[in-house]
Amino acid sequence: MPHVSHRGAIMPDSPIRKLVPYANLAKSRGIKVYHLNIGQPDLPTPQLALDAIRNIDRTVLEYSPSDGIASLREKLALYYRKFRIDVGPEDIIVTTGGSEAVTFAFMACLDPGDEIIVPEPAYANYTAFAISAGAVIRSIPSTIETGFALPPVEDFEKLITDRTKGIMICNPNNPTGYLYTQDEMDKIRDLVKKYDLFLFSDEVYREFCYTGAPYISAFHLEGIENNVILVDSVSKRYSECGIRVGALVVKNREVHDNVMKFCQARLSPPLIGQIAAEASLDVDGDYMLSNYNEYLRRRNFLIDGLNRIPGVFSPIPMGAFYTVARLPVEDADHFCKWLLSDFEYEKQTVFMAPASGFYTSPGLGRNEVRIAYVLKKEDLAASLKILEEALKVYPHRTI
Amino acid sequence: MPHVSHRGAIMPDSPIRKLVPYANLAKSRGIKVYHLNIGQPDLPTPQLALDAIRNIDRTVLEYSPSDGIASLREKLALYYRKFRIDVGPEDIIVTTGGSEAVTFAFMACLDPGDEIIVPEPAYANYTAFAISAGAVIRSIPSTIETGFALPPVEDFEKLITDRTKGIMICNPNNPTGYLYTQDEMDKIRDLVKKYDLFLFSDEVYREFCYTGAPYISAFHLEGIENNVILVDSVSKRYSECGIRVGALVVKNREVHDNVMKFCQARLSPPLIGQIAAEASLDVDGDYMLSNYNEYLRRRNFLIDGLNRIPGVFSPIPMGAFYTVARLPVEDADHFCKWLLSDFEYEKQTVFMAPASGFYTSPGLGRNEVRIAYVLKKEDLAASLKILEEALKVYPHRTI
Repeated sequence: MPHVSHRGAIMPDSPIRKLVPYANLAKSRGIKVYHLNIGQPDLPTPQLALDAIRNIDRTVLEYSPSDGIASLREKLALYYRKFRIDVGPEDIIVTTGGSEAVTFAFMACLDPGDEIIVPEPAYANYTAFAISAGAVIRSIPSTIETGFALPPVEDFEKLITDRTKGIMICNPNNPTGYLYTQDEMDKIRDLVKKYDLFLFSDEVYREFCYTGAPYISAFHLEGIENNVILVDSVSKRYSECGIRVGALVVKNREVHDNVMKFCQARLSPPLIGQIAAEASLDVDGDYMLSNYNEYLRRRNFLIDGLNRIPGVFSPIPMGAFYTVARLPVEDADHFCKWLLSDFEYEKQTVFMAPASGFYTSPGLGRNEVRIAYVLKKEDLAASLKILEEALKVYPHRTI
Repeated sequence: MPHVSHRGAIMPDSPIRKLVPYANLAKSRGIKVYHLNIGQPDLPTPQLALDAIRNIDRTVLEYSPSDGIASLREKLALYYRKFRIDVGPEDIIVTTGGSEAVTFAFMACLDPGDEIIVPEPAYANYTAFAISAGAVIRSIPSTIETGFALPPVEDFEKLITDRTKGIMICNPNNPTGYLYTQDEMDKIRDLVKKYDLFLFSDEVYREFCYTGAPYISAFHLEGIENNVILVDSVSKRYSECGIRVGALVVKNREVHDNVMKFCQARLSPPLIGQIAAEASLDVDGDYMLSNYNEYLRRRNFLIDGLNRIPGVFSPIPMGAFYTVARLPVEDADHFCKWLLSDFEYEKQTVFMAPASGFYTSPGLGRNEVRIAYVLKKEDLAASLKILEEALKVYPHRTI
């Protein structure tokens, strides 16, 4: 039999999904599993989006343009303007989810062996997309003790080689919920300028900033407009992850045209998803505010509850809907699996993502988990209770 | 400014889409453009699929499983069984169109520098997907004189090196409409066995075989079940290209699990498309037969008409809905562009895909075009008339 590719072999299993078989086994034993592992909100998709789908009056579901439906790109440009992101429809390429935007950004900008610097913990699939492109992620650890603030600039500079092509950030951050400050973003800008790097900026959680601190887009940074590749998605803000509609926003025409080659090869992003996304952009402020308030309540409830469990610590995430929490265990991978395969509390258990998969530096995050607060308060309450009871009886508890 | 990637720079423009700006300019001048360039059928999407979309009763459009909705995979397995392709739902991975299936097959099986042998002319985007994976396409020309039959086995063997990892075929073929015979498929099987290669087999046009000759799937070939990676899509057979639902079918578990890593990284294929695709699999025989007969009529009409135009020659395609025709011009790239930018006949023109983009051997296909017979007979008639008139006045006509 011919061998599979090396790149596939070295690609780590998704920390979010690798325990899914254990969760399924637990469910098959009649156990209710609370999914805190994946950023799949339970909040309703906007009625406008559902109506747009139900009212589709086409007889042929045909290819859309490779860069997306023009009217969707126009509406996205107006949407970005509300955040002082000054781009036009011609700077926007609609993608099949944010995932494809990251993949195509890497494919169009990075050659095999090229390096990008990524503060970690980081969204795990960046690694997968980098491996697909043959690029190398050089990671800089941020720590739970500082609430996952940006590591010092010197740490970045130490990693810069002649193969360094870019920096990738996620702001507000998945998995930590950290929101970069103006000072931190200015430091990133200075690095990008000094070393002439690409800045890949994943900003899909911009609607969810809870502390009053401003959201700073990479496109707000002066003097690097041609270095920025912004990654976006409608998935999280409109609770429509399944429609697979994202965007890559870039003012650099050379990058734009390079990305378009990959877009043309895959023909087009999903048509019906684009119709739903375009309708979603018309949601009124009430929908966004109600979701925002709901996440804020959940965040406060979850973080408070976590920090009340003996031995557990979570910083207060400033944005997005995740937190990385430290548990009194040696090996969170084992603990998360044990929760699904060996534990139950009143016929229930929780599914969390071990944080180790969000680090590439070996050994980091071993006692941390990522928790998504995408479930309603009662479910979070039940999850906290289950976690507390589990830690009481887990055989490998450390403190 | 940092440089874009080499892989992006070497990726050829899509021969199907690169002239789109010229077509748009023609339209802006009030000229009606007949689109023969792209395999976008004008036939209606099944009512069942449209109804399934209109009747969606979900309140949250959430991620689907990374390998696709289980009930869709089950129905696909039943569908394949009708073609004596003996696979189960566990062998099927739902992808975002056939495009993603090819991409992930290459990513999971090929490392940078690995080679695959592809008879040409070939679907142009295979090159783009191979470049994405860093793989190298070694092409073997088939010729219009033999109706694009499989080149001799010796031609394949001449290209085999220690980096050869696979053969890629498209059957029935896009762009030529050729349908491989049992003898040809047996020869491919023997090569695959002898050199232990992967056989990537794109079979998205299986419903459209017009000559009574049997459709032979790569999975019909005995003894290489573990080498075959079948690429499929619902786009063409149900006229729903825009929903972006395809499939990768593989019995080799190592390949399956490697592909799944790429699937997990991109989270899931489009949810609504999957719902539409699943409904489409319930279409009755009348829908398929009526479309089949329509394409058959169009094929007969188009090929007959082409061969009546002085200097034009088209073999009779046996399947799919394309033909590669030879024109009395030196440079079909120039001619196709000229048709859009400099010619009109009664305020109309035609958009064809220059065939050069379907070859990687330099200089081949220069006087050929790919024509998709996806338009109704009257439009094909108008297109034939326009082509005939254009060739009368084209300044660089050869014969």
